[in-house]
Amino acid sequence: MSSSTVGAAADRDGRNGPEGRGSRDGRAGRDGADRVWSVDEHLRDVLATIRPLEPIELQLLDAQGCVLVEDVTVPAALPPFDNSSMDGYAVRVADVQGASEEFPAVLTVVGDIAAGSAELPPVGPGEAVRIMTGAPLPPGAEAVVPVEWTDGGTGGGPATAMTARREPLGEVRVHRPATARAHVRARGSDVGAGEIALSAGTVLGPPQIGLLAAVGRATVTVRPRPRVVVLSTGSELVPPGEGLAAGQIHDSNSFMLTACARDAGAIAYRVGAVGDDPATLRATLEDQLIRADAVVTSGGVSVGAYDVVKEALSGLPADEGSVDFRRLAMQPGKPQGFGRIGPDRTPLFALPGNPVSSYVSFELFVRPAVRALMGLAPADRTTVRAVCPEGVGSSPEGKRQYLRGHYADEAVHTVGGAGSHLVKALAHANALIVVPEDATSVEAGAEVDVVLLD
Amino acid sequence: MSSSTVGAAADRDGRNGPEGRGSRDGRAGRDGADRVWSVDEHLRDVLATIRPLEPIELQLLDAQGCVLVEDVTVPAALPPFDNSSMDGYAVRVADVQGASEEFPAVLTVVGDIAAGSAELPPVGPGEAVRIMTGAPLPPGAEAVVPVEWTDGGTGGGPATAMTARREPLGEVRVHRPATARAHVRARGSDVGAGEIALSAGTVLGPPQIGLLAAVGRATVTVRPRPRVVVLSTGSELVPPGEGLAAGQIHDSNSFMLTACARDAGAIAYRVGAVGDDPATLRATLEDQLIRADAVVTSGGVSVGAYDVVKEALSGLPADEGSVDFRRLAMQPGKPQGFGRIGPDRTPLFALPGNPVSSYVSFELFVRPAVRALMGLAPADRTTVRAVCPEGVGSSPEGKRQYLRGHYADEAVHTVGGAGSHLVKALAHANALIVVPEDATSVEAGAEVDVVLLD
Repeated sequence: MSSSTVGAAADRDGRNGPEGRGSRDGRAGRDGADRVWSVDEHLRDVLATIRPLEPIELQLLDAQGCVLVEDVTVPAALPPFDNSSMDGYAVRVADVQGASEEFPAVLTVVGDIAAGSAELPPVGPGEAVRIMTGAPLPPGAEAVVPVEWTDGGTGGGPATAMTARREPLGEVRVHRPATARAHVRARGSDVGAGEIALSAGTVLGPPQIGLLAAVGRATVTVRPRPRVVVLSTGSELVPPGEGLAAGQIHDSNSFMLTACARDAGAIAYRVGAVGDDPATLRATLEDQLIRADAVVTSGGVSVGAYDVVKEALSGLPADEGSVDFRRLAMQPGKPQGFGRIGPDRTPLFALPGNPVSSYVSFELFVRPAVRALMGLAPADRTTVRAVCPEGVGSSPEGKRQYLRGHYADEAVHTVGGAGSHLVKALAHANALIVVPEDATSVEAGAEVDVVLLD
Repeated sequence: MSSSTVGAAADRDGRNGPEGRGSRDGRAGRDGADRVWSVDEHLRDVLATIRPLEPIELQLLDAQGCVLVEDVTVPAALPPFDNSSMDGYAVRVADVQGASEEFPAVLTVVGDIAAGSAELPPVGPGEAVRIMTGAPLPPGAEAVVPVEWTDGGTGGGPATAMTARREPLGEVRVHRPATARAHVRARGSDVGAGEIALSAGTVLGPPQIGLLAAVGRATVTVRPRPRVVVLSTGSELVPPGEGLAAGQIHDSNSFMLTACARDAGAIAYRVGAVGDDPATLRATLEDQLIRADAVVTSGGVSVGAYDVVKEALSGLPADEGSVDFRRLAMQPGKPQGFGRIGPDRTPLFALPGNPVSSYVSFELFVRPAVRALMGLAPADRTTVRAVCPEGVGSSPEGKRQYLRGHYADEAVHTVGGAGSHLVKALAHANALIVVPEDATSVEAGAEVDVVLLD
C-alpha cells in the first residue's frame, strides 16, 4: 500500500492519522483472522443480502415516492371523448367561414353543455351550442370557437367571458373562422386504450400519481417504504430533556438516525436508548422485529469490554440469524456490524456509537440499503469534484477518510476536525470530503471528491 | 412587444401559438380593465401576502425539515467531561514512556470504567485503569492507550480486543508510549457552554436534530409545516376506481396536487372533487378552513358559464376576504386566482383545471408559497441551461411557455406537445422547458432554460 498526497506530483512518506493508528491497521491487514474490509467491499456485501420488499397494493397517495412493480395499462382512452379545450361555442366549420368582427357569422344557440354533461344537443347548419372547457363535443359540431372570438350571445362586441350559469338561448355572433377540430381534444389524444401508461420501475411522484388517477386507478402495486427500527445503546445515555448525572451524556444517535432513515425514504421508529445489558438488548430486538423491515443500532460494536451489540449478536445460534462484526478501512466508522436476525432474517445494521461515525455509516451503508429495499437504485447522493483551499493536513494511510465539509461555489472547506465526537461541526456541514485510501494528506488548493448531503 | 426566435440571429415574424391565441392576448393587454400579468408579477404579488407561520414548540423528530426560529444556546459543555476516544487503558504518561513490544511497561490495573460509570478509580504511579470509549477519564490519568497497544491484561502479545465484561484485576503490558491527552476528548471540545449550537433560520436535518439532542433539547421552536387543503372542482369528475358515465372523467388533480403539496413540505389533506355548485363549494371551504394554513383548488377559474371557483369567490364581502382572478402571460396556466379567505385570511390558490396547467401553476406559485409559509427561501428548484435538439416550433407571443421536457446529459428533449391535457407526457417528463415571453420559437439545437423537477 503506497501513501500519497492528493494534489502532489509525487508520493510522500506516509504519515499516520492523528491517532497514529495506521500501523495498527497495517498489521491487522496482514492478519487473516483480523481482516480489514474496504468501504466498497462492505457496501457490496450489504447490498448483496438486501432483497427489495415484497410489493403491496396501496391507495394512490400512500404510494407516493414508491416504485411501481406493475406495468399500468390504460383501460379506456384518455380523454374518453372528444372535448372542448376552451369555453366557447361548438360550431360547424362552414358556418363560420370568412367570419370577422365586421361581418360576423350569426348562429342560433340551441343548447349549453357544461363539463360532465351527458345531454348533447346536436349542432345543425346555422346552429351553435355553448360549450365549456372539458365538455363533450356535441354531434354535428366540427370545431370550437373560444368565447373571446364571439359576442358571447350579448349582441355586442367581442366578449371576455360568458354569462355565468344557464341563460335563455338566442343568437351568438362569431368574429373569426375556425378550422376543423380547432380547440377540440380528440378522444385518446393523451393516451390510448391498451397503451402502457407507466412501466414497472417508475418512481411515483406527483405527475405519475396524477396520471394513475386519470386512468382510473385508485390503488396501485408498489414496493412499500421499509419500516426501520432505530435504537441506540449505552448505559451512559439519557434522553434529551432530562438532567445528566456524572459520566452521562444525552442520547442523540437514536434521534439523528431516525431522521436519517426518514430522509432516506423509510418509515422510521425510534425505540430510544438501551443500556449495556445483552439480555435487555436481545429482548428489545425480539419485541421490535415484528414491525421492522430493517434494524439500525448504534454503539457497542468495537473492542471494549461492554460492547453490548457485539456481545448480544455475535455467534447467534444458526436459527436466529447471524451478524458479522468487521473492521473497515475507513475513518470514521471503522467498527461495523451487519447481518440478518430473527425469523424473517431482518437486516440489522450495527453502527458505531460515535455520533459522526454513526452518521457517516448510515450515509454509506444504510441509506443505500433502505433505497434497495424500496426497489430504488442504491446510490442517490451527488458526488462532485471541488477545490479544497485548506487541504487536509493528515489522513490515515490505507483508510478512506470522510471529513465534514461545507460546499459552496465549487469549493469545499473543512468544518471541524476529524474527531468523530464533533457533532456541532457535523451539523454545520453540508458535504463529506472524501480522502482516498492511498492519500495521507491533501495539498491546499487540490481537488477532492465531495459527497453533497442535501 | 417584439417576437423572436431563441437561437436565431435576428427576429422573425411572430407566429401565434397552436391555438392562435396570441392576438387575443395582445388585445387583452391593450385593455386596461382586462390586464394580463406576467409570471414574475404574479409570483411577487403572491409572496408579498404570504407570512411565515407562527412558530410552535415541537418534539425534536416532529421538527425534521422545519426552520428553527430560536438561537439554541448550549446549557453545558459537550462533551460534559474529559473522556476516552478508545477502548483501552487510562495511564500516566511517565509510566509508558519508551514502552515497546520488546520492553513493555507493566502496570497494575486498579479498576475498570464503563461508559456511563460514575465511579472513577484514581490512577496512581505504576497504575492503569481499563477504560471504554466515551467513559470519563479518571483522576490521575493523563492519556489513554488503545487496547491494541497492550496485551489486554492477558500476559500475551498484542491484544485485538478486551475480554468482555468485568474481569479480575491484574497487570497490563503496554507496548507503546502515549503523549499527554492522547485519545482523550476534552470537556467542551465539541461545543462549549453558552455557545450557540444552531442559529435561528437553520433547517433541521438529521445532523441538526442530532446536535439538538446532544445538547439536551427534547423540544424545539420552529415554524411548522403548513397544512394544505386540496380540492378539485368540476361536475364531470369521478373518483378513480369508479366507472365513468358519458361526459365524465376521473379526478386526477386532487391527487396530483396533494402529492405536490407534500413534496413541497406541507402536510396535505385531499378533500376530493366538488361539483360546479357555488353554495356547495363555499360550504366545503368553510368546513375545511379550520385545518388549513393554505387552500388549493383546481378548475373553475376561467371565462366559462359554470366556473364555480370564480363564481363562488369573486366579489366576496369584505369580512370574508378577497380572491383576485387574473389572466397571466403564460402557457399553460393563464387563468389564476389568488387571495385570502375566512376569518384568518387563509391564502387560497385557485389553479386552472387542466391537469398540466394546475401542475405548472403549483410549481410556479404554490410551491414557493408553501416554502415561504415554512420560513424557507421560496425558490428551490434548480434551473440549468441545456441544448434543445428539436427546438420548439412555435410559442405564443408575449407569453412565457412551460413545455414538458426530459433532461439528461445537458440536453433537454420535449415530451409531448403543448396541450395542457397531456398528463401522460407530464408523467414522463422530469423538467420544464422555459420559452421566454419574447420568443415565438426555439431553433433546433439552441439553448433553453430548463427547470429540473426532481
